[in-house]
Amino acid sequence: MQRQGELLQAFRAVRGQTTALAAGLSAEDCMVQSMTDASPVKWHLAHVTWFFETFVLERALPAAGRAFRPFCQPFRVLFNSYYLGVGPMHPRPERGVLSRPGLEEVLEYRRAVDEQLGGLLETAQLCAAHLDLVELGLHHEQQHQELILTDLKHHFSRNPLLPAYRAPCAPAAGAGLPDIGFIAYAGGRSHLGHDGRGFAFDNEGPRHGVWLEPFALGTRLVSNGEYLRFMAEEGYRRPELWLSDAWDTVRREGWQAPLYWRRAEDGWRVFTLGGERPVEPNEALCHVSYYEAEAYARWAGARLPSEAQWEHAARAAWPNPAGEGVAGTQAGNFLEDGHFHPRPPQAGAGPGAVAQLFGDAWEWTQSAYLPYPGYRPAAGAVGEYNGKFMINQMVLRGGSCATPRSHIRPSYRNFFPPAARWQFSGIRLVRDG
Amino acid sequence: MQRQGELLQAFRAVRGQTTALAAGLSAEDCMVQSMTDASPVKWHLAHVTWFFETFVLERALPAAGRAFRPFCQPFRVLFNSYYLGVGPMHPRPERGVLSRPGLEEVLEYRRAVDEQLGGLLETAQLCAAHLDLVELGLHHEQQHQELILTDLKHHFSRNPLLPAYRAPCAPAAGAGLPDIGFIAYAGGRSHLGHDGRGFAFDNEGPRHGVWLEPFALGTRLVSNGEYLRFMAEEGYRRPELWLSDAWDTVRREGWQAPLYWRRAEDGWRVFTLGGERPVEPNEALCHVSYYEAEAYARWAGARLPSEAQWEHAARAAWPNPAGEGVAGTQAGNFLEDGHFHPRPPQAGAGPGAVAQLFGDAWEWTQSAYLPYPGYRPAAGAVGEYNGKFMINQMVLRGGSCATPRSHIRPSYRNFFPPAARWQFSGIRLVRDG
Amino acid sequence: MQRQGELLQAFRAVRGQTTALAAGLSAEDCMVQSMTDASPVKWHLAHVTWFFETFVLERALPAAGRAFRPFCQPFRVLFNSYYLGVGPMHPRPERGVLSRPGLEEVLEYRRAVDEQLGGLLETAQLCAAHLDLVELGLHHEQQHQELILTDLKHHFSRNPLLPAYRAPCAPAAGAGLPDIGFIAYAGGRSHLGHDGRGFAFDNEGPRHGVWLEPFALGTRLVSNGEYLRFMAEEGYRRPELWLSDAWDTVRREGWQAPLYWRRAEDGWRVFTLGGERPVEPNEALCHVSYYEAEAYARWAGARLPSEAQWEHAARAAWPNPAGEGVAGTQAGNFLEDGHFHPRPPQAGAGPGAVAQLFGDAWEWTQSAYLPYPGYRPAAGAVGEYNGKFMINQMVLRGGSCATPRSHIRPSYRNFFPPAARWQFSGIRLVRDG
Amino acid sequence: MQRQGELLQAFRAVRGQTTALAAGLSAEDCMVQSMTDASPVKWHLAHVTWFFETFVLERALPAAGRAFRPFCQPFRVLFNSYYLGVGPMHPRPERGVLSRPGLEEVLEYRRAVDEQLGGLLETAQLCAAHLDLVELGLHHEQQHQELILTDLKHHFSRNPLLPAYRAPCAPAAGAGLPDIGFIAYAGGRSHLGHDGRGFAFDNEGPRHGVWLEPFALGTRLVSNGEYLRFMAEEGYRRPELWLSDAWDTVRREGWQAPLYWRRAEDGWRVFTLGGERPVEPNEALCHVSYYEAEAYARWAGARLPSEAQWEHAARAAWPNPAGEGVAGTQAGNFLEDGHFHPRPPQAGAGPGAVAQLFGDAWEWTQSAYLPYPGYRPAAGAVGEYNGKFMINQMVLRGGSCATPRSHIRPSYRNFFPPAARWQFSGIRLVRDG
Repeated sequence: MQRQGELLQAFRAVRGQTTALAAGLSAEDCMVQSMTDASPVKWHLAHVTWFFETFVLERALPAAGRAFRPFCQPFRVLFNSYYLGVGPMHPRPERGVLSRPGLEEVLEYRRAVDEQLGGLLETAQLCAAHLDLVELGLHHEQQHQELILTDLKHHFSRNPLLPAYRAPCAPAAGAGLPDIGFIAYAGGRSHLGHDGRGFAFDNEGPRHGVWLEPFALGTRLVSNGEYLRFMAEEGYRRPELWLSDAWDTVRREGWQAPLYWRRAEDGWRVFTLGGERPVEPNEALCHVSYYEAEAYARWAGARLPSEAQWEHAARAAWPNPAGEGVAGTQAGNFLEDGHFHPRPPQAGAGPGAVAQLFGDAWEWTQSAYLPYPGYRPAAGAVGEYNGKFMINQMVLRGGSCATPRSHIRPSYRNFFPPAARWQFSGIRLVRDG
Repeated sequence: MQRQGELLQAFRAVRGQTTALAAGLSAEDCMVQSMTDASPVKWHLAHVTWFFETFVLERALPAAGRAFRPFCQPFRVLFNSYYLGVGPMHPRPERGVLSRPGLEEVLEYRRAVDEQLGGLLETAQLCAAHLDLVELGLHHEQQHQELILTDLKHHFSRNPLLPAYRAPCAPAAGAGLPDIGFIAYAGGRSHLGHDGRGFAFDNEGPRHGVWLEPFALGTRLVSNGEYLRFMAEEGYRRPELWLSDAWDTVRREGWQAPLYWRRAEDGWRVFTLGGERPVEPNEALCHVSYYEAEAYARWAGARLPSEAQWEHAARAAWPNPAGEGVAGTQAGNFLEDGHFHPRPPQAGAGPGAVAQLFGDAWEWTQSAYLPYPGYRPAAGAVGEYNGKFMINQMVLRGGSCATPRSHIRPSYRNFFPPAARWQFSGIRLVRDG
Repeated sequence: MQRQGELLQAFRAVRGQTTALAAGLSAEDCMVQSMTDASPVKWHLAHVTWFFETFVLERALPAAGRAFRPFCQPFRVLFNSYYLGVGPMHPRPERGVLSRPGLEEVLEYRRAVDEQLGGLLETAQLCAAHLDLVELGLHHEQQHQELILTDLKHHFSRNPLLPAYRAPCAPAAGAGLPDIGFIAYAGGRSHLGHDGRGFAFDNEGPRHGVWLEPFALGTRLVSNGEYLRFMAEEGYRRPELWLSDAWDTVRREGWQAPLYWRRAEDGWRVFTLGGERPVEPNEALCHVSYYEAEAYARWAGARLPSEAQWEHAARAAWPNPAGEGVAGTQAGNFLEDGHFHPRPPQAGAGPGAVAQLFGDAWEWTQSAYLPYPGYRPAAGAVGEYNGKFMINQMVLRGGSCATPRSHIRPSYRNFFPPAARWQFSGIRLVRDG
Repeated sequence: MQRQGELLQAFRAVRGQTTALAAGLSAEDCMVQSMTDASPVKWHLAHVTWFFETFVLERALPAAGRAFRPFCQPFRVLFNSYYLGVGPMHPRPERGVLSRPGLEEVLEYRRAVDEQLGGLLETAQLCAAHLDLVELGLHHEQQHQELILTDLKHHFSRNPLLPAYRAPCAPAAGAGLPDIGFIAYAGGRSHLGHDGRGFAFDNEGPRHGVWLEPFALGTRLVSNGEYLRFMAEEGYRRPELWLSDAWDTVRREGWQAPLYWRRAEDGWRVFTLGGERPVEPNEALCHVSYYEAEAYARWAGARLPSEAQWEHAARAAWPNPAGEGVAGTQAGNFLEDGHFHPRPPQAGAGPGAVAQLFGDAWEWTQSAYLPYPGYRPAAGAVGEYNGKFMINQMVLRGGSCATPRSHIRPSYRNFFPPAARWQFSGIRLVRDG
């Protein structure tokens, strides 16, 4: 029962955190889908609830001898994201068309499911398989907390009024950053993947052996100031720095800077969740695509880390290297800090240590998102969670300023197509040893 | 001053009618842009206000010795539709992204402009040119009243919940309709275009001579029941009935019925502003494209009327044939009737008279939307109102159940591309005499 | 029998002229389809032959008691253009893929059909309906003679080697052109359409009454020099000169000059069927779209003629105004002159006469391509010839330097979409009288 | 000088083999570009010649004190494929437009460069760097030999006449194939990449350590008969078998079978370079995409091999495991066999051995095409050869029936996007050990 009690507590915390993120937004703010890749806040609020209703309540209520009745039958289609095994779904590009149900009704849907599932966790004993689904649902909802922020940011950026989601945080006063150092790793046999203690998504395992050649990892994320030098040296105009598909994208899209940057008379400005303000050179760079990250690394005479390199280093920097299950205690700039934007590395990050591995900005790796040896997705519709996206995407690691602190771990694999820029995605360099 | 007084009265009536159309809709309902051709209700509410602010207040206030200050500077860009002469504009396909300003702020914008312009009309003497712009603005707003309804209908139709805008009207109990008769017209010299008495858009003039060959006009609009026969005889599968571009469209879009029709187990159903219900055979058909209208006419051994034929017949049927300026007194099913859907022709429409010329459904003509001989658009940005769209569109005549009654007249030219279906557009047949 | 004899003579002449156009081209030259709108020369050579085989031989041979056997069964599909009533067809955008049959085999196909049909015309008596089809086939083939030239020109223009089809003609030495004058026409009742004497396509009739307001027609085509002034006055950068769709096209396509013009260090150069050379100011402008023609006219304070205006003036200028059937005797710069490019107006064209009505460049009218009152296409597949294209296109009149002289007449209606530029299409101005 | 002598011999052999592939094709056959991914045979013939002219002659002739003069200046642009470092290039989708230069002139271009480079190799001593470029040019030309065949096959397949390139080979008489067995590999430390002896492309190195978990490799390629079972069990209609992007592609493209398969009344038929014939169940499957290969493997309860697994097994099966440089001696169905289509595995391939590792069909791996640790492309334009394509593609291994025998080796990495089907690409299964 201890696990169930902890999950109940986590359930209330996570659900409350999601609702809190939407507080202060109008019903209109919560409705917009500014591009197909993004979803309305309201849709996120409903979809994570649908997940608990569909994968937990529909199974666990009957198991506890109670009747399951969906809150609203059409929601089962409206708020299914992509689970073909569950049934039909509302088309993704049409999520912004749903003025009905209104935000109020969606919040009521949340409350109803919270009440039912909270009550169930309080009063009945759930089997391990159903508790696993509760836990999956919580991590799923944390992923959507991040998406609520990134999708809202994209939406607000397209409004010429440039509205602010939260009061702006003062950007760090900037003494010059010391140059990035490179910490050497000897390589040899290592392993990749989650060790099975504590929660992980199925795509993080199974743990398996890898062989690493010697390498050296950059001590911090690439900063805005460094990227401005790349831009000043015509980085966006030199095809020899870019992959062929990347160069095609740069020209087709007219990219000249990271997403959300705008050249003003007095220099580059950046749109943040606190409104638009000048680009702060010491902050970690974000909102670049894999294409830009890869080109920058080439320009800098370096490359991007592989998943195995990154995880090897990150595991050593994790608070409890022996136990990945103890999440939520590592330092870093996360969602709960309420900054919603990368910061400069902390003063404590000396030249001999690797900083910013967790939080601030997701780090593009040079690894494609593919299954580990021995990977098997779960049976049934939940098996669609991760496995079916293992093509045409690159892995990112380490979490961002919009990631809940307890959500990240060294083995965590995020993934996006190489041209995606609306996530808080930045650059970590590596050099061959 | 009599004209100014009448305009003030009309101003209050038209503005009030627009606001009334939006009453009962949530802020979320008013935000959706379900396709590029359509706009959110909120945008319509703001844009028509922008029109008065930009084309009247900005000119007439200084002329009256009063200061003009825009309600909100960014609105000048946000709510400009397509007037390049005024300045930049927010991109049309991005109108649905504007959660800010909220609906409340837009309604305040309306009130502020109403107060300013109402006050001006009450207390100052406006010159004729400015009064002309007020009048233009009123007719402009009436056009957007119709678009509010058609765009909202499209939006609601894409929501699987199929929400109703208004309580459904009972469809007319259906005794069989008598067949369409054909009234002969002798032809000869006639004229086309507005005679200059009363308001007209610039595209309705100048009046000019035309020569008509003898023709015979169908006594009413084509009904749903007749169109069902076309469908039953494989109308959508016989290429010989269609124009080449039309056939390409039918196949590419998979058209098998008018827009908003759905084949259910017990027959065809139609989505209306009162929700979904069975197709009523006696009602006038609507939501067909020019392509479908033209193919239907070929199948029926007839054709679509030319603008000149239609206007020749309509002028004779107009309450005061000698004076087109007396609008608003003709019979017909219009926006004010609150039915928001075509109806069967009225009993009084005997075999010797032409019914449904005004209201119910716009009637596709076989005339392309092109300038009349001697046409000159107004100078300045207002000249962009009509003239620059005179290509790639076909003319529709007569108004619909979503047109304000006082907005229509025999010389009125509506225009849409031949594949457009989301307007209340139907079919009138003609035969060569 | 006289008509059959004349047709036999015409058949040999037209067929020989087509083959002569392809002489000097390599098999590779004859294979290229440089855009979907254009077709390979080889395909044209085969398709016009298919037309005679399908619409004449297949009917007339059995009627004469002789067996019909297709030259090659697959050709029936490969070389059908768009006649759904005949059967399936090879997809238009895939015409360039047909390396087989080779050019030699296609020429053999031509010879075989020539021999069969020539023999039939010599030795059997054909009924009038079949003779009508022979005549239609000849005019059809003349249309493809023009397309062979325009499609080949487009193809060669895309090859950086800029090959010449024929030896360049020396451009006319250029004394300045006198300004365009305007000849007044009183208007009143006129008629539009072919009178039925001699051959005409079905889309040229029936002749019907029209009413013309007074107008004044420009005395010659707009010249390159005049268009250069439009360009120098920022014509391509001023949205107020353009229709809305036109302006979208200008920006999307990056138009800055007519098709085939290129800005070189020493001025504008033009690609012709004789290779690239400087733009000659006195020559008639060509290779402009309707969009450009319409914008130019607005800039020039004029407009484009309607079909009815143009035909009214052209009928008066025709060698034998009473008998349109006597084609081929009018002056003008036509295909047979071998110049393949517009020329300056002839010296004889005094200020009081209208020059260049026939030949040099097709003249965009402000009339959409729509059926005349009473229009009925022929029954069967031949009825697909013209009627099904009567939407989304504008009418051009008068023929060009690539039109066979005997192919044009005052009632002739050519038609292309408003953005098309690869035909020899130019500008005639008109002013309201 | 021994190396130079060997290269001279290889130069003559490879160049002759290319020309021989084009023999028997008409100039028209050599001109067609049937899709953007493919190129005309003539373009291939010219481009490989351009490669020698640009990267060898232009450098080595002056080094030998002889003048370099390009054969034809415009060819430098026309036949540059994608080397931005060399200069501008003719747009790839427009290669089919080049009727000029004709095939004869291209063959003359080949002879001229052969003569110059042959003469140089015979009479002057080239430095190692230039000899490296000669060697690179030969392997480059071999790649284009394969593309000549696959591009021509695509082109011919689009012609309804279904022409045959070569006389059809009799498909193997088919006793039933034994089931695929699986050979176990213990895993542990292995290495990946070329060892530097003999030629390799830069993307094959540097050799580096990898760690392999135990695995078992399928004893032969998947056969047509096996794939027919997948199809019979609704493989193309079950979304749970497919990656998400794959399923989207299947639906969008309407895939129901491998490329070039057609369902006839009496069963499936396949288009080959010898014409269309029935699908032979025992032959190795080919012309499937990565998407299909991955779905098939899931259906079969297996997966696709990683690069490291494949190379580990292939190195052991290579004639001289210690020396990869000794190419051209391994068994297998290659271009030189003139079969141009996969065959059943050879009888000798017993249950304990892995057959068809080389030749027959390229084998999709589950590895993305990415740089090896320490990878550095060559300096200058030649560095664009491979490196800039390292994104959005999957690796294929082992060569096909269209690969020259001396071109393949265990470390060879081919790469195509996951939806590509026009190469001879098939399926090898692997199971976790």
